[in-house]
Amino acid sequence: MSEQPVETILAPQPRPASGAELPNRRGEFRVLRTITTRWMDNDQYGHVNNVVYYSYFDTAVNGFLIEASGCDVRELPQIGIVAETSCRFLRELSFPDVVHAGLALEKLGNSSVVYRIGLFRNDEVEPAALGRFVHVYVDNASRRPVPVPGEVRKALEGL
Amino acid sequence: MSEQPVETILAPQPRPASGAELPNRRGEFRVLRTITTRWMDNDQYGHVNNVVYYSYFDTAVNGFLIEASGCDVRELPQIGIVAETSCRFLRELSFPDVVHAGLALEKLGNSSVVYRIGLFRNDEVEPAALGRFVHVYVDNASRRPVPVPGEVRKALEGL
Amino acid sequence: MSEQPVETILAPQPRPASGAELPNRRGEFRVLRTITTRWMDNDQYGHVNNVVYYSYFDTAVNGFLIEASGCDVRELPQIGIVAETSCRFLRELSFPDVVHAGLALEKLGNSSVVYRIGLFRNDEVEPAALGRFVHVYVDNASRRPVPVPGEVRKALEGL
Amino acid sequence: MSEQPVETILAPQPRPASGAELPNRRGEFRVLRTITTRWMDNDQYGHVNNVVYYSYFDTAVNGFLIEASGCDVRELPQIGIVAETSCRFLRELSFPDVVHAGLALEKLGNSSVVYRIGLFRNDEVEPAALGRFVHVYVDNASRRPVPVPGEVRKALEGL
Repeated sequence: MSEQPVETILAPQPRPASGAELPNRRGEFRVLRTITTRWMDNDQYGHVNNVVYYSYFDTAVNGFLIEASGCDVRELPQIGIVAETSCRFLRELSFPDVVHAGLALEKLGNSSVVYRIGLFRNDEVEPAALGRFVHVYVDNASRRPVPVPGEVRKALEGL
Repeated sequence: MSEQPVETILAPQPRPASGAELPNRRGEFRVLRTITTRWMDNDQYGHVNNVVYYSYFDTAVNGFLIEASGCDVRELPQIGIVAETSCRFLRELSFPDVVHAGLALEKLGNSSVVYRIGLFRNDEVEPAALGRFVHVYVDNASRRPVPVPGEVRKALEGL
Repeated sequence: MSEQPVETILAPQPRPASGAELPNRRGEFRVLRTITTRWMDNDQYGHVNNVVYYSYFDTAVNGFLIEASGCDVRELPQIGIVAETSCRFLRELSFPDVVHAGLALEKLGNSSVVYRIGLFRNDEVEPAALGRFVHVYVDNASRRPVPVPGEVRKALEGL
Repeated sequence: MSEQPVETILAPQPRPASGAELPNRRGEFRVLRTITTRWMDNDQYGHVNNVVYYSYFDTAVNGFLIEASGCDVRELPQIGIVAETSCRFLRELSFPDVVHAGLALEKLGNSSVVYRIGLFRNDEVEPAALGRFVHVYVDNASRRPVPVPGEVRKALEGL
């Protein structure tokens, strides 16, 4: 029986080409969004189901954009569709924990925005999960990629 | 305005060290699991929300394991906890589509199982999404990693 | 300690004014819709969480309407908004059960449609749950009540 | 086209036999629980899907019980299973609203607890929804009804 911690079994997370360090710990994120867990988030094993972590990502990113841009980004002619996401699950979360989602900008492209996300349980400083969330902006009608809209670029300056 | 398709904007998915090709198209998966979409899977933009794709992954893997092992894997003393997942979203899904989740074995380790997952919309052969789902087996009481249980290894022979 | 079954503790369900009997058992429903359960539907007690039953209701009603009307009811200028729902939980459901949702018409009003819903586990004939689902049709723009659209009325003839 | 408001179309909510008035407005609830909405709570029509309201009910009741009893009610030998729920949907909720769930005790029986629930959007005083949530306590092993445990009865004194 292995006594190796889970984290060392997993392949290391790819680092950005620039070599810049991505934030991991709570204090390294400039923006934190508060999310309340729900009773039904817990699965049969008594902790928050893996799927639900992505709803925290989704909520943190969109909640931040709506608040920081001062406009309802869903109403813009360019909408952000989710092109890719990933998550490493490091510690359990469980209802009634409060989750604090740290947001950072990993990469801002022409049409895409890559967020780094850390989830923190209650007042813990080590992440319960670390994730990546990629938005690609498309024209709402044609669904073809377009440049990241100005309202969003401006909001991202806060990250 | 870019006319570049979304997929080329994204970084290529890492390939396994062995150089073996992972399955992409419907016919390349040996196991397909059928999942019905739900009205509430659709989000404000009228397609299945990105979070919900992971519930299809979760359901396909666990449903397969229960069926192929002939035992309720939740009752084993070793349980599979989800250590890492990722998804690339390639085409829209929308209620009332029927989703077919293709399952393949990307890697079988001592304590971990890495699944390759493809989601197919109705009778389409190109994937709506491609994902990765990593189970690490732990002792249900101590939550320390343990070898993949025999019941699960046997089930995986079908992939 | 009481040995009284759960059902007798609850107040009886109101009957329709007409005195007509509402369907309860599987064979009494003219329409049955198949829904696959999901791993995350199960909560900490190992059965499908009460909230999820309502997603089966929602899915059964809207899936039926789309199929039976031959049109995407979401695109009509009149949309059905949910005004009231209720459910009595009689037997447990658990992943990987397959749920069959029976649909019947309890009442067709000028602006409203009241559905009777029974949920059946796998091939069981006694309901796991009995529910009520009230749609009120409104103008999509003004959100004021309007008559039930013809496309929906026609679909309801099948119930 | 009717100009009648949605509420008058619906049958009146049954009142308790005692004739006591149930709370409706925000100030009439002694306990309010705060719940953050999530991006994926919104459905295709841009407001919170009806199913999700029940997750707010579930979360408010269980969160209150855990906090007010000072113990994790999930660990007791008697667990509360949901026997019946209902909801009238009166006003829209939409992400990123914050929901305040008012809790009141409608009836305390031998084995059952009936909660009255009101959901309030942000700082509004009129309810977005009014609901009923019935817990029946059962022995965790036998699943037969048992008296409401003392820890829960004590917590309910705060309602």
